Amino acid sequence: MDKVRKMERVAALTKIMADRPRYLFSLSYFSDLFGAAKSTICEDITAIKEATGHFGLGTIETVAGAAGGIRFIPRVSAKETDALLNELALRLAEPDRIIPGGFLYMSDLLFTPHLMVKVGEIFMERLERLAPDYILTVETKGIPLAFMTARAFDLPLITVRRGSKVTEGSAVSINYVSGSSKRIQTMSLPKRALPAGAKVLIIDDFMKAGGTARGMVDLVYEVGAKVVGIGVLVATAEPEDKLVEDYLSLLILHDVDEHTKITDIRPVLTSV
Amino acid sequence: MDKVRKMERVAALTKIMADRPRYLFSLSYFSDLFGAAKSTICEDITAIKEATGHFGLGTIETVAGAAGGIRFIPRVSAKETDALLNELALRLAEPDRIIPGGFLYMSDLLFTPHLMVKVGEIFMERLERLAPDYILTVETKGIPLAFMTARAFDLPLITVRRGSKVTEGSAVSINYVSGSSKRIQTMSLPKRALPAGAKVLIIDDFMKAGGTARGMVDLVYEVGAKVVGIGVLVATAEPEDKLVEDYLSLLILHDVDEHTKITDIRPVLTSV
Repeated sequence: MDKVRKMERVAALTKIMADRPRYLFSLSYFSDLFGAAKSTICEDITAIKEATGHFGLGTIETVAGAAGGIRFIPRVSAKETDALLNELALRLAEPDRIIPGGFLYMSDLLFTPHLMVKVGEIFMERLERLAPDYILTVETKGIPLAFMTARAFDLPLITVRRGSKVTEGSAVSINYVSGSSKRIQTMSLPKRALPAGAKVLIIDDFMKAGGTARGMVDLVYEVGAKVVGIGVLVATAEPEDKLVEDYLSLLILHDVDEHTKITDIRPVLTSV
Repeated sequence: MDKVRKMERVAALTKIMADRPRYLFSLSYFSDLFGAAKSTICEDITAIKEATGHFGLGTIETVAGAAGGIRFIPRVSAKETDALLNELALRLAEPDRIIPGGFLYMSDLLFTPHLMVKVGEIFMERLERLAPDYILTVETKGIPLAFMTARAFDLPLITVRRGSKVTEGSAVSINYVSGSSKRIQTMSLPKRALPAGAKVLIIDDFMKAGGTARGMVDLVYEVGAKVVGIGVLVATAEPEDKLVEDYLSLLILHDVDEHTKITDIRPVLTSV
């Protein structure tokens, strides 16, 4: 009977912690929920820790003290990361993705939940050392992957709007030159969205010259916050000199040939 | 030793299945992963089923046959749903959310992952009988909650754009009148995004007159697909007659008084 209970608790604990990565749960919370002693919960957690560690699914951190507790940090193994990036590269190289102008149709992948859940965890894994307070992106196509990155960090997402929308109150706006359109455009951020001094990680789906990323960096500084890093799913190889200095890209787009329908896109693998 | 292994498998199985709601995993997949017999995996699944059922976290469905397997369907209990909707109503009624024009600032909540994970599961729970093939929304603020609904259903999300963007190829466009701005606007959908005959569930953050939702319905019919339902987080009480006939709203906004700073917003509870 007690064995069954332990098994039930382990399954329920795993589900609850996996549902909210990085969130610090107190032992008292679980102790109340399951009507079990804290020491019992600790034993359960040890079993989960071994299981998720063994299968490369994540780690469990214990924070000591009165304000302490336990949190689950998802991990994507190098093997799994590379398999996903290889899959994305293959799919993005499909000939019918090429759109006049040398663009690639990416929306179907960018809006597929199970892919973006993993991409978000990969960004978290590679950029967690930057310890951001907020994830920031610009509408529209980057929102799902930025949101899943925010989920993996257990942080709020801030979305920069193109133009200035009436339903968000007063906003700070700047002009920027988009690398793809070469036109001057406006982007804005609601004043209340980001507190001064906040550390911001920028996540976006695509970077060519880096004009949009540069605009986001400027906007963040404009409200008195600070950019600690930039992550993009796909960056083009050319131009080599981007308008932002340091960024992480998971895939590099070397060439799109509209004539031969050949796309040269390569994953940046972890295992090499 | 075997006890420890069982515990490890149960934790790992729970994590993997909870990570991808509704996805049908084959028993062979788990059998290979854990190097265990299918009958052993079945016993583990039974333990998880009892645990998640007992704690109201979800159900596990078994699909028989060669193409069969097991899938996890998250459940949000009526109590948890009501608690979340009450919390959202309370927070949306905060006086400093009122923006000139009688709008409510909602972006901070709409872009908070753990809240939208739950809202997505609530939509899935209440609308799964409609058996959609796709979730559809319009940019921008509705994307996270529509994406989390798509995740709970394990379905792709399609995002309608305002205007027609160059990076998405040929698109179908229609004009619509937005209830909030009373202006004629354009929205468009890439032609390749939605196959003819597909069943579409529309999810959005806010509905006033229903003009935007009406536009999405028309756009879906335009490409030969079919709308099976509409879900919104907040609908206004007035006008009572919306431009769409049938929709589910989780919260009803009765009044925003810019003068007294009082917002009357009420959850649509499940337990009454």
